[in-house]
Amino acid sequence: MSEGILNGIRVIEGSAFVAAPTAGMTLAQLGADVIRFDAPGGGLDWKRWPLSSGGDSLFWSGLQKGKRSIEIDLRSEEGRETLTQLITAPGEGNGIFVTNFPARGWMSYEALCERREDLIMVVMTGNYDGSSEVDYTVNPSTGFPAAMGPRDSAVPTNSLMPAWDSIMGGLAVVGLLAALRHRDATGEGQLVQIALSDVAFATVGHLGRIAEVQLEGSDHAPDGNYLYGAFGGDFPCKDGRRVMIVALTDRQWKALKQATGTEELFAKVEQATGNDFSDEAGRYNGRDLIRELLAPWFAKHTLDEIRATLAGTGVSWGPYQTFKQLVEEDARCSTENPMFTMVEHPVGTYLTPASPLTFSVSGRLPAKRSPHLGEHTEEVLAELETEPAGDTS
Amino acid sequence: MSEGILNGIRVIEGSAFVAAPTAGMTLAQLGADVIRFDAPGGGLDWKRWPLSSGGDSLFWSGLQKGKRSIEIDLRSEEGRETLTQLITAPGEGNGIFVTNFPARGWMSYEALCERREDLIMVVMTGNYDGSSEVDYTVNPSTGFPAAMGPRDSAVPTNSLMPAWDSIMGGLAVVGLLAALRHRDATGEGQLVQIALSDVAFATVGHLGRIAEVQLEGSDHAPDGNYLYGAFGGDFPCKDGRRVMIVALTDRQWKALKQATGTEELFAKVEQATGNDFSDEAGRYNGRDLIRELLAPWFAKHTLDEIRATLAGTGVSWGPYQTFKQLVEEDARCSTENPMFTMVEHPVGTYLTPASPLTFSVSGRLPAKRSPHLGEHTEEVLAELETEPAGDTS
Repeated sequence: MSEGILNGIRVIEGSAFVAAPTAGMTLAQLGADVIRFDAPGGGLDWKRWPLSSGGDSLFWSGLQKGKRSIEIDLRSEEGRETLTQLITAPGEGNGIFVTNFPARGWMSYEALCERREDLIMVVMTGNYDGSSEVDYTVNPSTGFPAAMGPRDSAVPTNSLMPAWDSIMGGLAVVGLLAALRHRDATGEGQLVQIALSDVAFATVGHLGRIAEVQLEGSDHAPDGNYLYGAFGGDFPCKDGRRVMIVALTDRQWKALKQATGTEELFAKVEQATGNDFSDEAGRYNGRDLIRELLAPWFAKHTLDEIRATLAGTGVSWGPYQTFKQLVEEDARCSTENPMFTMVEHPVGTYLTPASPLTFSVSGRLPAKRSPHLGEHTEEVLAELETEPAGDTS
Repeated sequence: MSEGILNGIRVIEGSAFVAAPTAGMTLAQLGADVIRFDAPGGGLDWKRWPLSSGGDSLFWSGLQKGKRSIEIDLRSEEGRETLTQLITAPGEGNGIFVTNFPARGWMSYEALCERREDLIMVVMTGNYDGSSEVDYTVNPSTGFPAAMGPRDSAVPTNSLMPAWDSIMGGLAVVGLLAALRHRDATGEGQLVQIALSDVAFATVGHLGRIAEVQLEGSDHAPDGNYLYGAFGGDFPCKDGRRVMIVALTDRQWKALKQATGTEELFAKVEQATGNDFSDEAGRYNGRDLIRELLAPWFAKHTLDEIRATLAGTGVSWGPYQTFKQLVEEDARCSTENPMFTMVEHPVGTYLTPASPLTFSVSGRLPAKRSPHLGEHTEEVLAELETEPAGDTS
């Protein structure tokens, strides 16, 4: 129970930035022994912002938690040999390598397979042809930035959250666990590949946006904070705070009218204007009118009053919060939530999430600290020496 | 090879909207037999936008592809019994249930376990206490909308892309495969739970934003399309198109200066102003100046010229595209990309993605079509009759 559901798996991670570190961190949170290697002095994301006032990367800390960190100089033949031994070490739970580095030369799947035939190697690239790309260059191409932001905006709006990286990190773990299941059953390893722009464009397709272009020829302009295809909009409150209100389902719409005392108002306006807000399409088409009619109620109440009034009503809503307000005001982002604990990291002590996944039998591991860079170099190298040579063929 | 890496697993999905359907679709793309059940006439997302001109949901089609669809009336005892039998059917690959419905009463883990002790059940909720929440109500609370959009914006900026749902869908599959591995090894099933706001707030933590608040007390205002903590910004081109340019690493920064012929310009300006753009922090702090100095080069060239000039240079960049431009202009989103094929769905024929994951041994299944609602009701019920009663205890 206390060791995590993936206890016994050892994963070597060669990575930087978000996607591959997220994959490794997800595995570490589930109990895998994840060893991230970096060049001496740190890799490309060693000083990635946000930074502490002491110059330490809080980003690096967040994405390496629960991992062991080793420094290896891959410019030396000795370093490359050590890493090859580590990646191809024998044992059922070993022989798993996750990377977003170019998988060429000695680090290619073929070369590593010569040392361990049943290697599972997950390679993340920017595009499917192996060329590079980052979340911030893929996102503008997806169509989302051109369809969000203020209605009258002449420019696209980037997302600050690297969603494609985070999604790819999760899917990489899906690929790894599927390949491990195959290896457990058949003894065969394999190369698993995934590209960031494929993840992004596939998602555009999943959500019906490719079909909409091809079948309907339609495109989208920014529409402010409205939700697409039903009612959802933001409202300023009496105290300057804002809330997001959603009525996707009939039940949510009825609850919203009831809680705000606008049932009669909407009935009269629907009658007078010929609008029908009883289905999603009607609510979407009438979104400006709906917002106009609801706005006075929100303007008359503070966020606290709104929270109290809407509690238990079935209204779908959420407060807008800055990062600071999230951390300082939202109980879901505090130690009241069993996912979070205060953890002492080398960069400082802060509220740290464990995996969002809980397992009734296997449990959930408490959040772990991030390592010092190279903290486990000696330890891991010593372990390697006590293991036999990496050849299971 | 042609059956998919998860061939042999059967998953019952009770779901609506994005997260749980994404989990089922991800499993179906890898070869699992995923059976989604809906109330007769369709569930809450049966008419979710985007719609075809014929009124069919392209959203529903996109997220159900590769699944079998059955209609079951859960208000009747017979319907509930049929579904219970389906969820708890015997066999190594059976007994897996994924849902975002309230797991209460006959649909609770405890009740279903009475019929199959080693059931794996993945339950997705809005908040960890089981209360409901959708992507569009969680996102405002994360802090991201308050920190993105135009610099001078007095209002937050919602993301159009339901990132938290997509991330949760992937993590749910991670949880399912980890639980399946545990069951294969020990015979024990278990309840796997995950909450949308936990996924979102954990991600805020992973990216260092919680630590930044707690250790540094800092918060963030919108900063336009700039990237945080390094240089990244958007540029209008001569022909009215726009591009996103990123210089996270030193190599990218050098390539950018070289490709735009601005090396000398930057050297002189750094000398004159005392700026040092040689590291990420310097480039972030000087982002307005950098953008000002690079803008003329982009304004002088069309997107096609920029594409030709930057090809192979190591500059990290991407074009802004609407959904239509993505589908009509980007070869990565076409049948040139082996992930995509044209597939005939009940709602029409459109470019459809397979899984972004490729497996060197297990292959990648071609994209599959989405079902008609209830297309497989008879077929699945007939299969159920040929199987023995669902009790493996």
